[in-house]
Amino acid sequence: MFGKLFGRNDRQPGAPDGAGPAAAPSMTQAERLRSVAGSSSAERAAEMLIGPAALMQLSLDEARIIVSHMQPHRIARGTTVIREGDVDKTDFMLLILDGEVTIETIVVSRSEPITLTVLGPGRLIGEMGLLDGEARSASCTASTDVRGAILTREALGRLLDDDPRTAAKLMMAIAQRTAVRLRECTDKLKMYTQLTQAMQQEINRPTVL
Amino acid sequence: MFGKLFGRNDRQPGAPDGAGPAAAPSMTQAERLRSVAGSSSAERAAEMLIGPAALMQLSLDEARIIVSHMQPHRIARGTTVIREGDVDKTDFMLLILDGEVTIETIVVSRSEPITLTVLGPGRLIGEMGLLDGEARSASCTASTDVRGAILTREALGRLLDDDPRTAAKLMMAIAQRTAVRLRECTDKLKMYTQLTQAMQQEINRPTVL
Repeated sequence: MFGKLFGRNDRQPGAPDGAGPAAAPSMTQAERLRSVAGSSSAERAAEMLIGPAALMQLSLDEARIIVSHMQPHRIARGTTVIREGDVDKTDFMLLILDGEVTIETIVVSRSEPITLTVLGPGRLIGEMGLLDGEARSASCTASTDVRGAILTREALGRLLDDDPRTAAKLMMAIAQRTAVRLRECTDKLKMYTQLTQAMQQEINRPTVL
Repeated sequence: MFGKLFGRNDRQPGAPDGAGPAAAPSMTQAERLRSVAGSSSAERAAEMLIGPAALMQLSLDEARIIVSHMQPHRIARGTTVIREGDVDKTDFMLLILDGEVTIETIVVSRSEPITLTVLGPGRLIGEMGLLDGEARSASCTASTDVRGAILTREALGRLLDDDPRTAAKLMMAIAQRTAVRLRECTDKLKMYTQLTQAMQQEINRPTVL
């Protein structure tokens, strides 16, 4: 599904996406790192992976190793890159480098999808499916043109074999981002709990004639 | 805060918790594994860590290595082991071996805390704080007597140094469990979205006189 490495020349405007060399599973780590050296997209992906201050943070060198296992990916505005309920294409996650992705869900009683959240640069989409292979829990649609970096489950397995320490720190970074999403979701649940309580009081209020 | 390994003799009923030898940070992995061999609690913790079928699953041997870095911990029914808003004691997570823990939050307008979820054997509590060191997002109270296994951030760092591949697979297991919590939270948000919509219609319905 995804088979190109970050290209050396992706600083050139107008260069087609995936202009880099084809990814070869048998490359050594040194070969991988050389193949992405000089790519501005790869460097941005490494910086995004490090992300905000975190415990047991990835170093820039470790982030570069991870990026050498990723593939650049562009999504045109309006494209749905992950579809709610999909059980087939659950073997990748995407790190957003530029642009915004809307996370939406279909609710039976409504014709329009409900927006759960909007994620921007440095955030991950699809990491839950990558981890557990379960059906996609929500749809992810590019609300702007998006530039991202894909990590497949296969590439993650290769990283685990090649450089387990870096793989461990990547998994921590993924788990941290999932924890941030869970904190945000919990905060929304608290808000809804209060909202429904207030609405229930409104409904129960006796009508004054 | 937590300083005992799983004891060899914890099959004996009535043995006090933490009867095992004191944890020594300088132990080799082989020494650690020997120190927990024969402990039924340690074996149960290893089985719980493996958990339900998952991708890139921990093997029993890997789970035993992780458990050798953990400490047994008992919580009496009614005890709050993690307190919402706490910023100090965020350096550990607990794997539930037996019993149930209620995850609760205080909502300003209510005198009673709201139950967000109830977690049982095989589930983790406190992993978000362990990962990001942020304030605890909810309180965790034992709703029965609970037997668990504690992993501190310090022990996780030691595991990362000693056995990075196993540390990576532990982080995947943690991330998977966080992803399960996020899926559950997202499902509840969807339900609340529908509920508030129905309630709004009820509120908007013209009163028939």
